[in-house]
Amino acid sequence: MTFEPTDYMPYDFANRRHIGPSPAEMDEMFATLGVGGIDELIEQTVPEGIRQAEPLETGGPMSERQLLWWMRQTAKKNTVLTSFLGQGYHGTITPPAIQRNILENPAWYTAYTPYQPEISQGRLEALLNYQTMVADLTGLEIANASLLDEATACAEAMTMAGRVAKSKAKAFFVDENCHPQNIGVVKTRAKPLGIEIIVGDPDDMDAEAVFGALFQYPGTHGHVRDLTEHMSRLHAASAIGIVSADPMALCVLKSPGEMGADIAVGTTQRFGVPMGYGGPHAAYIACRDGYKRSLPGRLVGVSVDARGNRAYRLALQTREQHIRREKATSNVCTAQALLAVMAGFYAVFHGPKGLRAIAERIHRKTVRLARGLQEAGFAVEPDSFYDTITVEVGLFQKAVIEAGVREGVNMRAVGTTKIGLTVDETTRPAKIEAVWRAFGIDRRDDPQAQEYRLPKSLIRTSPYLTHEVFHMNRAETEMMRYMRRLADRDLALDRAMIPLGSCTMKLNSAAEMMPLSWHEFANLHPYCPADQARGYTDMIEGLNAKLCEITGYDAISMQPNSGAQGEYAGLLTIAAYHAANGQGHRNVCLIPVNAHGTNPASAQMVGWKVVPVKCDEMGSIDLEDFRAKAEKHSEALAGIMITYPSTHGVFEETVKEVCAITHEHGGQVYIDGANLNAMVGISKPGELGGDVSHLNLHKTFCIPHGGGGPGMGPIGVKAHLAEHLPSHPLSGEGPGPVAAAPFGSPSLLPISWAYVQMMGAEGLAQATRVAILNANYIAKRLESGYKVLYRGPKGRVAHECILDVRPFQDSAGVSVDDIAKRLVDCGFHAPTMSWPVAGTLMVEPTESETKAELDRFCDAMLGIREEIRAIEEGRLDREDNPLKHAPHTVEDLVGEWTRSYSREEACFPAGAFRVDKYWPPVNRVDNAFGDRNLICTCPPMEDYAEAAE
Amino acid sequence: MTFEPTDYMPYDFANRRHIGPSPAEMDEMFATLGVGGIDELIEQTVPEGIRQAEPLETGGPMSERQLLWWMRQTAKKNTVLTSFLGQGYHGTITPPAIQRNILENPAWYTAYTPYQPEISQGRLEALLNYQTMVADLTGLEIANASLLDEATACAEAMTMAGRVAKSKAKAFFVDENCHPQNIGVVKTRAKPLGIEIIVGDPDDMDAEAVFGALFQYPGTHGHVRDLTEHMSRLHAASAIGIVSADPMALCVLKSPGEMGADIAVGTTQRFGVPMGYGGPHAAYIACRDGYKRSLPGRLVGVSVDARGNRAYRLALQTREQHIRREKATSNVCTAQALLAVMAGFYAVFHGPKGLRAIAERIHRKTVRLARGLQEAGFAVEPDSFYDTITVEVGLFQKAVIEAGVREGVNMRAVGTTKIGLTVDETTRPAKIEAVWRAFGIDRRDDPQAQEYRLPKSLIRTSPYLTHEVFHMNRAETEMMRYMRRLADRDLALDRAMIPLGSCTMKLNSAAEMMPLSWHEFANLHPYCPADQARGYTDMIEGLNAKLCEITGYDAISMQPNSGAQGEYAGLLTIAAYHAANGQGHRNVCLIPVNAHGTNPASAQMVGWKVVPVKCDEMGSIDLEDFRAKAEKHSEALAGIMITYPSTHGVFEETVKEVCAITHEHGGQVYIDGANLNAMVGISKPGELGGDVSHLNLHKTFCIPHGGGGPGMGPIGVKAHLAEHLPSHPLSGEGPGPVAAAPFGSPSLLPISWAYVQMMGAEGLAQATRVAILNANYIAKRLESGYKVLYRGPKGRVAHECILDVRPFQDSAGVSVDDIAKRLVDCGFHAPTMSWPVAGTLMVEPTESETKAELDRFCDAMLGIREEIRAIEEGRLDREDNPLKHAPHTVEDLVGEWTRSYSREEACFPAGAFRVDKYWPPVNRVDNAFGDRNLICTCPPMEDYAEAAE
Repeated sequence: MTFEPTDYMPYDFANRRHIGPSPAEMDEMFATLGVGGIDELIEQTVPEGIRQAEPLETGGPMSERQLLWWMRQTAKKNTVLTSFLGQGYHGTITPPAIQRNILENPAWYTAYTPYQPEISQGRLEALLNYQTMVADLTGLEIANASLLDEATACAEAMTMAGRVAKSKAKAFFVDENCHPQNIGVVKTRAKPLGIEIIVGDPDDMDAEAVFGALFQYPGTHGHVRDLTEHMSRLHAASAIGIVSADPMALCVLKSPGEMGADIAVGTTQRFGVPMGYGGPHAAYIACRDGYKRSLPGRLVGVSVDARGNRAYRLALQTREQHIRREKATSNVCTAQALLAVMAGFYAVFHGPKGLRAIAERIHRKTVRLARGLQEAGFAVEPDSFYDTITVEVGLFQKAVIEAGVREGVNMRAVGTTKIGLTVDETTRPAKIEAVWRAFGIDRRDDPQAQEYRLPKSLIRTSPYLTHEVFHMNRAETEMMRYMRRLADRDLALDRAMIPLGSCTMKLNSAAEMMPLSWHEFANLHPYCPADQARGYTDMIEGLNAKLCEITGYDAISMQPNSGAQGEYAGLLTIAAYHAANGQGHRNVCLIPVNAHGTNPASAQMVGWKVVPVKCDEMGSIDLEDFRAKAEKHSEALAGIMITYPSTHGVFEETVKEVCAITHEHGGQVYIDGANLNAMVGISKPGELGGDVSHLNLHKTFCIPHGGGGPGMGPIGVKAHLAEHLPSHPLSGEGPGPVAAAPFGSPSLLPISWAYVQMMGAEGLAQATRVAILNANYIAKRLESGYKVLYRGPKGRVAHECILDVRPFQDSAGVSVDDIAKRLVDCGFHAPTMSWPVAGTLMVEPTESETKAELDRFCDAMLGIREEIRAIEEGRLDREDNPLKHAPHTVEDLVGEWTRSYSREEACFPAGAFRVDKYWPPVNRVDNAFGDRNLICTCPPMEDYAEAAE
Repeated sequence: MTFEPTDYMPYDFANRRHIGPSPAEMDEMFATLGVGGIDELIEQTVPEGIRQAEPLETGGPMSERQLLWWMRQTAKKNTVLTSFLGQGYHGTITPPAIQRNILENPAWYTAYTPYQPEISQGRLEALLNYQTMVADLTGLEIANASLLDEATACAEAMTMAGRVAKSKAKAFFVDENCHPQNIGVVKTRAKPLGIEIIVGDPDDMDAEAVFGALFQYPGTHGHVRDLTEHMSRLHAASAIGIVSADPMALCVLKSPGEMGADIAVGTTQRFGVPMGYGGPHAAYIACRDGYKRSLPGRLVGVSVDARGNRAYRLALQTREQHIRREKATSNVCTAQALLAVMAGFYAVFHGPKGLRAIAERIHRKTVRLARGLQEAGFAVEPDSFYDTITVEVGLFQKAVIEAGVREGVNMRAVGTTKIGLTVDETTRPAKIEAVWRAFGIDRRDDPQAQEYRLPKSLIRTSPYLTHEVFHMNRAETEMMRYMRRLADRDLALDRAMIPLGSCTMKLNSAAEMMPLSWHEFANLHPYCPADQARGYTDMIEGLNAKLCEITGYDAISMQPNSGAQGEYAGLLTIAAYHAANGQGHRNVCLIPVNAHGTNPASAQMVGWKVVPVKCDEMGSIDLEDFRAKAEKHSEALAGIMITYPSTHGVFEETVKEVCAITHEHGGQVYIDGANLNAMVGISKPGELGGDVSHLNLHKTFCIPHGGGGPGMGPIGVKAHLAEHLPSHPLSGEGPGPVAAAPFGSPSLLPISWAYVQMMGAEGLAQATRVAILNANYIAKRLESGYKVLYRGPKGRVAHECILDVRPFQDSAGVSVDDIAKRLVDCGFHAPTMSWPVAGTLMVEPTESETKAELDRFCDAMLGIREEIRAIEEGRLDREDNPLKHAPHTVEDLVGEWTRSYSREEACFPAGAFRVDKYWPPVNRVDNAFGDRNLICTCPPMEDYAEAAE
């Protein structure tokens, strides 16, 4: 018989998944661009000398089903035992409604950082809830919207203390009761900054000798110490007191604020965020009101919109690294927004009474566990504790721990003769009995026992979570609707393109996201025995190999939790390499003026001197200036940090020369991986001359942005740097750790693994090509209305393009902000504003967007250009026009209309959906008002009532 | 130490989950009602003689974590082997984006049946896609929005043929190649209707002797027969030809329509809906245009709204059982909307080319499987086939099947000497090899082999899925946004109360929903060996025991897939009981005039004569009329069907007397379980005198409505009826089956199990009490504006109340429809309209709604009453008022405003959210226009363009 088989394969859908334009659409785009096909475009865009000679070898594509099957087999290789390991990682119960409606809901996980407040009111409110929770529990006035992990939060608190302390001392005291990974990361951070770390017993602390001190509360071995007196001594010496506190313990214990602490840090992991073999989770930092302008990270605050209605937005942005550049003393730019939202909702779900009950139950279980051991004759310390005890076992440490593993529980080795045991929300009586059996005790647990051993003087009596949101009706129906309402207020990738230059807002596909919440990936402790995490290590090794093939590097460290952390880790690696070669004096870092703001901030953090390099009118490195500065600093040259393709969206032909010159002068080359989405399968940074790069897995490799985190910024290095990569957080040796967990936030890695596998080598390269195609298509369509800054020699842009809107300020009084807000009316998130060039917009569409969506965006932008033209030509008023009043809300429609343009023009500009229009919940937000009247916790309800009046 | 422990327990959150009003809110509600507490209210509401003497004994509450742990253990008891069992159930790959964004998304699964089209445009469009897909694949003009399963669809097709055939014959022919469960359900259905079923070889069919004939295509043993000639013979005899066809096969085989079939049925399960041990999945029915008014079930059609814009709505509703009552010949009232939406999206995701490729791959794998067997010497039939073959194994049937199980594959026993093998989308080469090994063949599969054995004359050449929606851009980004846009157009429980009387729209909690998509529950074949389904059987036995305790019955059948199917199954059980006692002549069924419309329809289906019983002015059964009719029909009395509490929302004190009288006259009592949410823990139908009840698990027991299905309507019976319950679909013995799968749609049962377990006995009773409290609170708050029809002797309503809005027709020209549409402006789904009393609204809030949401609803209703008053008093025009123009859309706001009321009044009536307002995508829909111009497939794009103009 004759039968014409179709050529559609199981993975065709997989490839189509990520590639936005259909083949037919691509043909139309080629015609618009005047090229015969994608290869011709790439030839015009990427200089031949830059392109990799051989295609990628990462294997063929996998179907979704193959992928999920493989993931299932990999998951099975992880063995989830009940953890008594503690050290800041705890079993926790994620309320299913939060898992389904937040963690697994694209409306939440595909959102971008809330820099555009008008389209971010939902997650801003959720983060404000989180900040309020942290401030309440710690007893301090102000908390930020999260940091990466507890250990880096400790390091941030130390440098913050350095900024605010009046003490002139150069040393910093660290309580020996801190978790070892906190001590490790603090030491790593301190060294290049010239800070001496004194680890010791708090009672022996010499307050005069330090500018600040860090204490763990409760201590890593269970001790709960009243720190009031220590704080007094520090204050007397004009030094800063920092407490790293467990928020669950703070539900029953006196708060750091009440003890006089200036800063509190910690992790909110145990508030409903699974351990995930180390992350991601949200760390917190809180401080006294007087120090708020020195607080690192993002801060949500309350302001008003153009109608005077309450509106949320990020406050005090002038503190941030992307503005402070060389002056920055922290490079923090990612938070853990999605996880902070989850932790905040955990508190909303349980309320203060529920949280306290959970905290009490944990304690009672710990007491039961301790009593069982004591009654069998074991020596348990301390006498009073919260959730952690330490047991003396002499020579039997290894035997008891191994017996525990056989019983299904992991216990912590403390020193060489002790065992640490930490109890959590999930600990069941059967597992307490399993611990006893490992100690040779045959005993039944009595869940009804009501004994408490909290230190009497430290029992919390102050209230917390007093705001209405923590007392709302907790029926799941109401909770679900609250989560839905907040989600609906925001505009995320699940509704529209987010064309953010340098942020690569691409598809996070459903299949990629699924394994994240599987038990075997979610519930592993980061310090569990390695043989219980074989699934993870298999996957990480496989992903490392593929990332090496993609980047041309020889080794990868998964430890950094964000791109900025990756930069910092990469520079530390270079510094360690120089030091090992007797070149420890090298401390000059050349950085082009158009670099990411994190670059100079990261260089500062490793103690380097930043020397800026000029750019030419095309935004490329000024080779002459670069050569001169490299020569001038030849002796001291540590390295150069460049971005490729450049932050101006161009593939510079000179990159190899720049790398070669750097090497000639003994420097190392750091290539910022932010733009890797323009390179995968086409060009390898490691082959261009790079020695180190970080890879933003949350950009190129599909980890979702989560409304401002999580992120992952692993670094790839050439072989000569491999031995200088960050070391295990508990090892205490080598270059030191940069994060609390050995692999950063590994529960996200299945996402990137899935992307690489489902695309296959050819799919990955095609994604890059289409990312470049999409950007060039936009540049072409918009050139009739906007000047596209910076093109390559053949007139092409890379995977993003910069639109110059500066002339409109003079010609029509229209600012880049006006255009950004007007795009909200069109149903779009604004492109990146005023970076890398002030007064411009940088657009990056990614390969995921269809031609139809690109056209909708171009229609919107060209429509806006016509509105500007109408102002220029006097047909629209310079003040009373749709750009100045944007975004428009339903309130504008309903109220009296006195504008010079129509309601129709206001709300349905070109590009806007008619039926499915996104309506912003607020009019334009007044940032200055909010910074002048800083409120960073949930405002009282009366305020709402007033605002409504 | 002194430490005051809190009394919050792990399951407190679980109980608060379902109980809307907080304790503080309840106190306020008691004050409003003038009662001292919930017990006093229940005493006033439920007559003492009705209340159960002892509290429920279903155990204490489980926490979410305990529940999910138990579910995980239960899941592990199911063994998922690769199925080659076929028979209409196939492995399938659910695209993860559909699983996440539809099946696991409350915006889709909590929606109600789209009776209110203005708030249902999203799912109406999705269902229209489904109908178009079915019409295209079957080659017929019109398809409905789904039926329950393939077997009941066959039965529906048979009775439909009976309605439309001009032939006067009384017999119906059934192809012996039909799946056994299809034959079984058709036989069950035919018997009480007096239809003779002739099962035989299609070539031997006597077309003159039958009014219709049913064929399976491809046949259950793999034969693919050209039915063109059979259709001609039937048509010559004025009989109807029906084909039950596999839609996947139709992607490569000639369609039933092309062969001359009048009706096609089948299941769309293998379009991305997991087998789930039998269901739920969407069955389809399609027919020639001329028969459309006889098509059972729901039909989505295209119409216009008040602005002339395109709008979807349910078409030809006058056909439906709830209107036809005694004249109905089908009691179908549930569809499988959620599953039809999934199957429709599966087609959208793959498009015609993708579907064809999948269909081809399945066939090629079948050919490879067959060739391997043949080359080893086995006799395989038929010569040409699609996905199913049958192999002769002589005495080795059992041995080969058992060897297969050891190899991880299930094979079908055909007769006593053959084995049936069916291949599907998920069959991997390793499993083909496993089958070979079970046959003793050591052979490697060659996935590249390209052999086809489709019958040459039946290869499909006609196009399908030609509409644009099946050719849209298939990048996941675009697909995800399409699903989000449709979801956002609809108003479901995740945004607002759905106060539907008799529909019990309560919370479907996240924890309850999770196990549904677990592999071990999702991928079991309904006819797999029992020892592979121990998890299911354990859970079903446990749930049965608890449902017996709750209802006072002795045995449960899980088979019925909907409430209406439950009624039908219950009446069949009664009929079988009568027959077994020599009382087969009993055929009179007494039904009160206010009964659910399905009651008389179900009675018709078992061949009974419906005798209506009057109701008194309170809506209660007129005892005198009842007694007289029972006496009059004493000899022939089969039974009575009553609803308790009554459909008028009252606990009638006389119910026990009614039951007793019925029993005196030899009849059996059927108590409709629709209102069971007012009884659980307070009163047991089995103790009131009921012999049978169905339980709407999708009402009282938390299975979500899914936008119009799935449902589950198991029946509970007293011990004397247990042996007459529906039998296994494959058994061929006993009373016969009513559904294709032995336990109906068992993958839904974890939901109900979870609800019962997490509530615990006391929680279940409390839910009932609060459902009654919420209804009485609404009745109290609204009595100043509306007359509440029907109250109990002490002035209380049960769990719902009827608001009389008839007077407003005269006083203000306002209809029940106007009020319903105005409620959309307030952000609410309308209550049940005009049932059980024309011109009224029946409100059921359920226990899940908080006082705040009840108040929002009451505010909305009282605001509407004020608007009516304004019309009555001449302050608003009788035509130009917000009620007549409701619902208001953004289009109303944007356009010119010439109304006599303001935009503000139009869009923000009392109760409407300000920031989070729901905007309907269309103005009021014109139902009559759509029925006059019936279009039930996706309209061409030009039409959209026209409509937009």
